[in-house]
Amino acid sequence: MATSASSDDENKANWLTRKLSPKKSTSPRSSAINRLSSVTNPSFISISDILRPTRPTGHQSKPQQSTIDNSLVDIAVNAGTDISSLADKSRGTIDFFHTPPTTIPTAQGNRYDDWSTIDWLSDQARDRLRHEIITEQRKQSLWKRFLAYHDALSGWFCVLLIAVNIGILAAIVDIGAVWLTNIKDGICLPAFYLSREQCCWTASNQTYDNYQHIRCVHWHEWAHLLHITSGTTAEYVVNYIAYVFFGLIFATSCALLVKTFAPYACGSGVPEVKTILSGFIIRGYLGVWTLFIKSLGMILGTSANLLLGKEGPFVHSSCCCGNIFARLFPKYGQNEAKKREILSAAAAAGVSVAFGAPIGGVLFSLEEVSYYFPLKTLWRSFFCAMIASLMVKVLSPFENQHLGLFYVGNRYRWFYFEMIPFLLLGILGGLFGSLFIKLNLAWCRIRKRTLLGRYPVTEVIVVALVTLLVSYPNPYTRMSMSDLIRRLVSSCESDDESFLCNYERNSTSAYEKNDSAKPLSGVWLSVALLCSALVTQTSLFIITFGIKVPCGLFIPSMTLGAITGRIVGILFETLVYYWPNFFLFANECSTADEQCIAPGFYAVIGACAFLGGVTRMTVSLVVIMVELTGGLSYSLPLMCAALVSKLVGDALVGEGIYDAHIKLNNYPYLDVKTEFIDQTTAVAVLENKEEKNELIMLPRDGLTLEELTVIIRTHKYNGYPVVSSREEPSIIGFVLRRDLQLAIEQRTLINIQSNMNPHISFSRTTNQSNSLNIYRLLNRSPTTVTLDTPTTTVIDMCRKLGAQTILVTNDKGHLTGILTKKDIIAYVKQKKTK
Amino acid sequence: MATSASSDDENKANWLTRKLSPKKSTSPRSSAINRLSSVTNPSFISISDILRPTRPTGHQSKPQQSTIDNSLVDIAVNAGTDISSLADKSRGTIDFFHTPPTTIPTAQGNRYDDWSTIDWLSDQARDRLRHEIITEQRKQSLWKRFLAYHDALSGWFCVLLIAVNIGILAAIVDIGAVWLTNIKDGICLPAFYLSREQCCWTASNQTYDNYQHIRCVHWHEWAHLLHITSGTTAEYVVNYIAYVFFGLIFATSCALLVKTFAPYACGSGVPEVKTILSGFIIRGYLGVWTLFIKSLGMILGTSANLLLGKEGPFVHSSCCCGNIFARLFPKYGQNEAKKREILSAAAAAGVSVAFGAPIGGVLFSLEEVSYYFPLKTLWRSFFCAMIASLMVKVLSPFENQHLGLFYVGNRYRWFYFEMIPFLLLGILGGLFGSLFIKLNLAWCRIRKRTLLGRYPVTEVIVVALVTLLVSYPNPYTRMSMSDLIRRLVSSCESDDESFLCNYERNSTSAYEKNDSAKPLSGVWLSVALLCSALVTQTSLFIITFGIKVPCGLFIPSMTLGAITGRIVGILFETLVYYWPNFFLFANECSTADEQCIAPGFYAVIGACAFLGGVTRMTVSLVVIMVELTGGLSYSLPLMCAALVSKLVGDALVGEGIYDAHIKLNNYPYLDVKTEFIDQTTAVAVLENKEEKNELIMLPRDGLTLEELTVIIRTHKYNGYPVVSSREEPSIIGFVLRRDLQLAIEQRTLINIQSNMNPHISFSRTTNQSNSLNIYRLLNRSPTTVTLDTPTTTVIDMCRKLGAQTILVTNDKGHLTGILTKKDIIAYVKQKKTK
Repeated sequence: MATSASSDDENKANWLTRKLSPKKSTSPRSSAINRLSSVTNPSFISISDILRPTRPTGHQSKPQQSTIDNSLVDIAVNAGTDISSLADKSRGTIDFFHTPPTTIPTAQGNRYDDWSTIDWLSDQARDRLRHEIITEQRKQSLWKRFLAYHDALSGWFCVLLIAVNIGILAAIVDIGAVWLTNIKDGICLPAFYLSREQCCWTASNQTYDNYQHIRCVHWHEWAHLLHITSGTTAEYVVNYIAYVFFGLIFATSCALLVKTFAPYACGSGVPEVKTILSGFIIRGYLGVWTLFIKSLGMILGTSANLLLGKEGPFVHSSCCCGNIFARLFPKYGQNEAKKREILSAAAAAGVSVAFGAPIGGVLFSLEEVSYYFPLKTLWRSFFCAMIASLMVKVLSPFENQHLGLFYVGNRYRWFYFEMIPFLLLGILGGLFGSLFIKLNLAWCRIRKRTLLGRYPVTEVIVVALVTLLVSYPNPYTRMSMSDLIRRLVSSCESDDESFLCNYERNSTSAYEKNDSAKPLSGVWLSVALLCSALVTQTSLFIITFGIKVPCGLFIPSMTLGAITGRIVGILFETLVYYWPNFFLFANECSTADEQCIAPGFYAVIGACAFLGGVTRMTVSLVVIMVELTGGLSYSLPLMCAALVSKLVGDALVGEGIYDAHIKLNNYPYLDVKTEFIDQTTAVAVLENKEEKNELIMLPRDGLTLEELTVIIRTHKYNGYPVVSSREEPSIIGFVLRRDLQLAIEQRTLINIQSNMNPHISFSRTTNQSNSLNIYRLLNRSPTTVTLDTPTTTVIDMCRKLGAQTILVTNDKGHLTGILTKKDIIAYVKQKKTK
Repeated sequence: MATSASSDDENKANWLTRKLSPKKSTSPRSSAINRLSSVTNPSFISISDILRPTRPTGHQSKPQQSTIDNSLVDIAVNAGTDISSLADKSRGTIDFFHTPPTTIPTAQGNRYDDWSTIDWLSDQARDRLRHEIITEQRKQSLWKRFLAYHDALSGWFCVLLIAVNIGILAAIVDIGAVWLTNIKDGICLPAFYLSREQCCWTASNQTYDNYQHIRCVHWHEWAHLLHITSGTTAEYVVNYIAYVFFGLIFATSCALLVKTFAPYACGSGVPEVKTILSGFIIRGYLGVWTLFIKSLGMILGTSANLLLGKEGPFVHSSCCCGNIFARLFPKYGQNEAKKREILSAAAAAGVSVAFGAPIGGVLFSLEEVSYYFPLKTLWRSFFCAMIASLMVKVLSPFENQHLGLFYVGNRYRWFYFEMIPFLLLGILGGLFGSLFIKLNLAWCRIRKRTLLGRYPVTEVIVVALVTLLVSYPNPYTRMSMSDLIRRLVSSCESDDESFLCNYERNSTSAYEKNDSAKPLSGVWLSVALLCSALVTQTSLFIITFGIKVPCGLFIPSMTLGAITGRIVGILFETLVYYWPNFFLFANECSTADEQCIAPGFYAVIGACAFLGGVTRMTVSLVVIMVELTGGLSYSLPLMCAALVSKLVGDALVGEGIYDAHIKLNNYPYLDVKTEFIDQTTAVAVLENKEEKNELIMLPRDGLTLEELTVIIRTHKYNGYPVVSSREEPSIIGFVLRRDLQLAIEQRTLINIQSNMNPHISFSRTTNQSNSLNIYRLLNRSPTTVTLDTPTTTVIDMCRKLGAQTILVTNDKGHLTGILTKKDIIAYVKQKKTK
C-alpha cells in the first residue's frame, strides 16, 4: 500500500512538472541544480522557481531524475535516524529509547522513514506551495478551476468518505458482535443469522426470566437442541460447556489472527494513535490489515465475554480508515502534517460510532487524542462524527430514533441532597481508577519481564478460560457488558418482574407516590450477585487490559462503575425508605412527584465516575455520558462525579491509563496538556543530552565533495547546521542529510559525465566541480534559540510550532548546540520522574 | 480600582522581599544592580537570586526603592507605545492604526500601559518564578504549606466565585427585564413587583388571547386602570401610548446611563473581549462601572423592545466579573497572561447563563472568543459555566427542571426528506447573514462619518421611537423576542386556540394520526403577520446593532430565523396536506405515528441557520441550539443547516459579524482561526512596515549615560536590541525602555550621592560611573528569526508563542530589523484586503 501511494506521489509530481514546463529547455545540469536549490529550501520557493524550465530533453535520462522531480513538489525532509527504534512487531510493542541508533534503509519515495518524527514546519510549507500552485493555475482553464474547487473541498469529501465507511464498519461490528455473543447461548432455529432479540421479535409468546433475558420458542439453547430436559443439572452443565467452548474458540481465533496477520491490531490503540498524531510515523500501524484484523478481533473478543470494550479499538480502526482514504486525496495523503487533521477527525468519528455520541467524540479527540488541532478542523471533525453516527443509526437493526446507547432520557430527576452519594461515587471512582492503573501497570511490567510475554496466544486462552468459567454462574456476568449496563441504568417499570426490581409495590406503579418502595429479597439477591461480579470482574479487568487482542477499557470501566452505582443507589434508597424523616431528605423527598431515589441514575453516575478515574477525561467524559443517556439535565451531577473522581485519582496516581501506557512503552510523546513549570534554560536541556557527541557543523564554503562525503558517512545525523566559519560559527542555515546526499550524488554524476564528455562541460561548473555550493541546499530559516531561552519556550517551540530540530546559540550569536525533539522529550521525561 | 490593585501588588512584593532577606546586607549599590540584573531577564532568575540579600539597611532610603523591590516579583515589561492609540471614550470606539504615536504616562505600579499588548512570554516566566518561590517555601511551615495549596487551588476558587456572581447577576437581569417589559403593558395591582405571568399564577380565571397572551383579573392594562371601556379604540390608543411612553423612557435612560457613566458599556462587547483576550490591555473596559451599567442597560434595553439581545453583553459582563474577582487572587490578578485563562472561563459562563447552555458556552469560548486556551482551562471553564447556569436555575422564579431556555425536548421527530426544507433554511440563513453584515457595516460607516455619530443618545431615542411605534400594532412584534421564539418553536397542543394553531382538528388531537391537518384562516393570518414582522424587524435590526446601548445579536437573529422557519414549516405542511402522495413524503409520512411536519421544529432550524449566517459559529452553535431545545436528536438537521448557512455566508461575505466589527474598528487583533496561506518571508513584512525608521540598536559596551539618555529620549520605542558592535551587529539581547530608564535614573542618583559623599564610593563603581552595564538588563533570549523565515512561521510565533517583538537577522546572523505584533497585524490586514 505504501509503495503504491508513493508511486502515485511520483506520478503526480511528474505530471505537475510536465504540465508546468512543456516547452523550454536549457542545460540539464544547471537546471538540476536550480531545481535542487529551489526544492530544499521551503522558504525560498516561489512560483517563478516552479515555472522555470526543469525537464531535460537531452539524452541523459538519469535514474535519479524522477526522484528529483518528485522532490520539486515534495520539499522533502528525511527525518531518518532522529528517533531510531526497535519495534518488536511480534509483541506489538515499540521501545524507542533503549535501543542503539540504527539506520533503517529509506524506501524510495517515502518522505519519512518508519519510526521518525515529521517536520511540521516543512510539511506546512509544502502545503502552502501546493496551494499556491493550484491557485495560480486556476485561471488557466475551466478544468483547472474545477480542480481547484475540488482541492478546496477535498478535506470535506475525504471526511465524508471516511465517516460513511466508519459508520458501515461500526454497524457490521455491532451486529456481528451481538450475534456471536448470542451464539454462546444458543441459536435461532428459524433463521440462524438472527440474534436472540431479533429472533424473538416475531415469536408469539415472549417471556423474560428473572434477569430480564428474553425467552421465546424460536430461540433454542444448546442443551435444548440436544434434547436435554429443561431444568435439570445436565441442562446447566451442557449450556455451561457450550458457553465456555464457543467463548474459547472466539478468543483463540482472535489471538491467532492478531498474532499472524496484524500484530499492531492488539491493545486499545489510543496511546499509539496519540503518539502518531503528535507527529510520529509508525508505518503499517494504520494500514488495511490492521483495520481488518482489528475489526474482526473486536467482534471475536467481545463475543468471548472477555473484559474488554470496543471503544479504544474503534478509535484505532477509524484512524486506519482515515489513513487509507486520505491516500485518495494527495493534499492529505502526501503530507503527513495535513494527514493528521484528517486523523483527528477520524478519531472523533471513532468515539462517535462507539457510543452514538458525536459531540463527545469531537471533544474526546480534542481533549485526549489530538495534538495539532486547529480550530477549522473542529468543524470538520464534528461533521465527520455526525455523519458516522448517522450511518450507524441508519444501518443498525436496533434503530432507536437517533437516541443514545444507554438511553434513559430525562426520566430521572435528582435532588441537591443526592450530591452526597454522587460525590461518594466520585471518590470510589477515583480510588478504583488509581488501583486499576497501578495494578494493571504492575501486571504489564510482569508480562514484559517474565515468560508470560513470550506466549501471548496462550495468555489470551488462559485469561479467556478463566473469564468464561467465572462468568457463567453469575447471571449478571454471563450477559454481555452492554446488556448489563443497560439493565443497571434502567428504572423499574411497573411490569418489571426481575429480581433487580423486586419491590413491594401497589398495583399501578412500582412506587407509591411520594414514597420509596420497600426492597424485597430479590433486590438483595441481586445486590449480592452484583457484589460478587464487582470483585471477579475487577480482577479480570486488570489482567485482561493489555493482552494481545484488540481491547478497549471504556465499557469494562463503565460496567464496574454502573455495578457500584446501582449498589450504592439501592443502599441509599433503603436508607430513605427506613429513615424517611432524616433531615437531609425529609423535605425534598416529600415534594417529589415520583420516586425520590432512582438507583438507575446512580448507576449512570457510577459509570461516569469510574471511567473518569481510569482515563482522567473531563469535559468529553461528561458530554459522552450526557449523549449516552440522552439526559441534558444530568450534566451537573455527572460533572461533579467526574471532577471528584479526577481529583482523587490525580492525587493518588498522577496520570490516566493512556498516558501511563505511553510512558510504560517509552513512546516519544511530548505531552501537550500538562504545563511544564521549570526555571531552567536551554543550557540544562543541552547538558542533559544522552549522546554528548561533538557538534558537527559545516562551514559555508571550502568543503570538497570528498570531505562532505566523509562527513555524512561518519556522522549519521538527520541534518547539519551550516555556519560562516568554524572559528566564528554564526548560523547560516541547516542542511538535511538527505538533500546533501542527493546533491553529492548528482554532482559526482555530472563530474563523471563531464570527464567523459568534455564538450558539454562549462567553464563555470568545471571550476567548482570538486566543491558543492551548500548555500543553495540550505533551509535558511532554522529554528534558533539562545542558551538563555527558558526550557518552557523551547518545549513550546516543539509543541506549538512543530519544530523538529532547534539550534542553540550562545550570547555571541555563535552556534553551540543542537536540540532535537528527542532530546527535549528525554529531558521532560527525566524531569518528571525526578 | 486599578490603583488599589497595584498597591496590593507593591505590598505583596515588599512583603516577599522582606521575608526572604531579613538578615544580611551588603553595599546598597551593588545589590541594587544585582537586583536589577536579576529582575529584567526572566530567563536568568533563580531562587538564589531571590534569596540574595537585597534590602538596604543603610540611611539611603531612596524613593525608587519600592518600585525596584516591586519589580523583583514583577519581571516587568513595559509595553509602552507599542500600539499607541487614541481612544475616543465618549464614542466608545477605539482607533489604533490611524493615530499619531503618543506616549501615555505610565501609572506607577501598573505593569502595562493602557492600549498596549501584553508580553505572554515574560508573563509566563513571571508565573513560573512565582510558582517556584511558593514551592520552595512550602517546606518551611504549615502556614506556608497551606498557602501553597491555596495557591494551587486558587484558580478553582476564583472561577467558583465568578460563576456564583455571574449566576446571581444573570438571574437579576432576567427577572428585571421580564418585569420591566410587562410594565409597558400594564401592572399587577395586588403586587406591583410581579410580572404578568407571575401575577396570573394565583388568579382564578386565566384566559389566553389569540396570540397566547395570558390574561387574568389581577393584571390591569393601563387603559383599564384609567377606566376606559374595554374593546374601544380609545383603549387601544391609550395602551399604545403607554407602551411607547414607557419604552421611550427605558431606552432614553439606558442611553443616558451609558453615555454618562460607562461609555464602554455600549455595543455587544464580544469584538472587544476577543481583542482583550488576544493580549491587549484596555483599562476600564472590564471595570466595575462597566459591569454595573451594562447589566442595568441590558434590562432597560430589552424592556424597551429594541431589537437587541442580552447574550453578547452577558459575555462582556461576565468578563468584567472575571476581571474584578481575579484581583482577589494575585496569581491571576497580577499576571495579565494568567488572567486571560480566567477571562476565557468567564466568557464561557456568560453564554452559559444567557442560554442555560453550559457545554455550548464552553465551546463558544473555545471557538469564538478565546485566544489562548490551554486544555487545562477547558475543564475549569466547563466548571465555571456549569455552576453559573446552576445558579441561574436555582434563583430563577421560572425554574423549569434544569431544562433549556426554549425547551421542546425530544418531542419532534424528523424525516430524511425534510432535509430539503432544512437546507433551504440554511441557504436563507446564509443570505440573511450576509445581507445583515453588509448593511449593518454600511450603516455603521455612515454613523461614523456623518453627524449621526455625534448624537448617540438622540439616535437611540429615534430608533426606540420607531421600533415602538412599529412594534405595537403587530401582536408578534409587540411581545418580547424570547416570548415570540418560545411560541414559534412550540408545537400545537390540542387545547391551543391561538391563531398559529388554527387547524381543522378532531376532538382529541390537533392532528389526526398519519395525516396532517388542514390549516384554517387563523394560520394564514399569523403567516401574514409574521411576514410583515420579518420585514420590519430585519430593517430595525440592521440600524439597531451598533447604537450606543448594550446590544447583543443572538436573540434578534434567532427571532428572525424562527419567524422564517415557522413560515417555511407552515408552507411545507400545507404542501404535504394538499399533495400527500408526492413521492418525497408519501412513504415516510404515512408511517409517522404523529404529525408528519412540525412547523415548530422548522422554527428551531431557522433560528440556528440565521444565527449561523450572522455569526459564522459552527460546533458551538449546534451545541447551543441542542442545549436550548433540549433535543439531542436534533443535532443532525441543526448541523446541516449551520453548515449550509456558513457555506453560503462565507461565499458572500468572508467573515462573521464579530470579525467584521473588529476590522471596522481597527482593533489590533491577530486572527487565530484562519490559516494564512502565503509564500512570502519576513522580508515582505519588514518592507511593509509603515514607519520605516532607522533601526536603533545599542552596542553592548561603550555608551555613556548621557548617550543612552539621549537615545531613549529621541527614539521612543518599546525596547532596543543590543548587539555586539555596530559594524557586525550580532544580537546579544533586547533591553526594554522601561528597564533602561530605571537603571539610568538609579545610576544617576548613585553618581550624585557618591559625588556628595565620597566616603562610600568604591573605586570599582566610580570607574564605571559614567557607563552602564547594559548586559545585566538584557533579556538574553529574544525571539529571533531570519529574513528567510516564512511569514506564516513569524505569525505563528506571535499567535502560538505569544511573542511581542521579533528580531530579524540576515544570513550573516546580523540584526537587520525588528517586527512588532503591530507590524504583523498590519501586514496580515493589508494582505487580506488585497
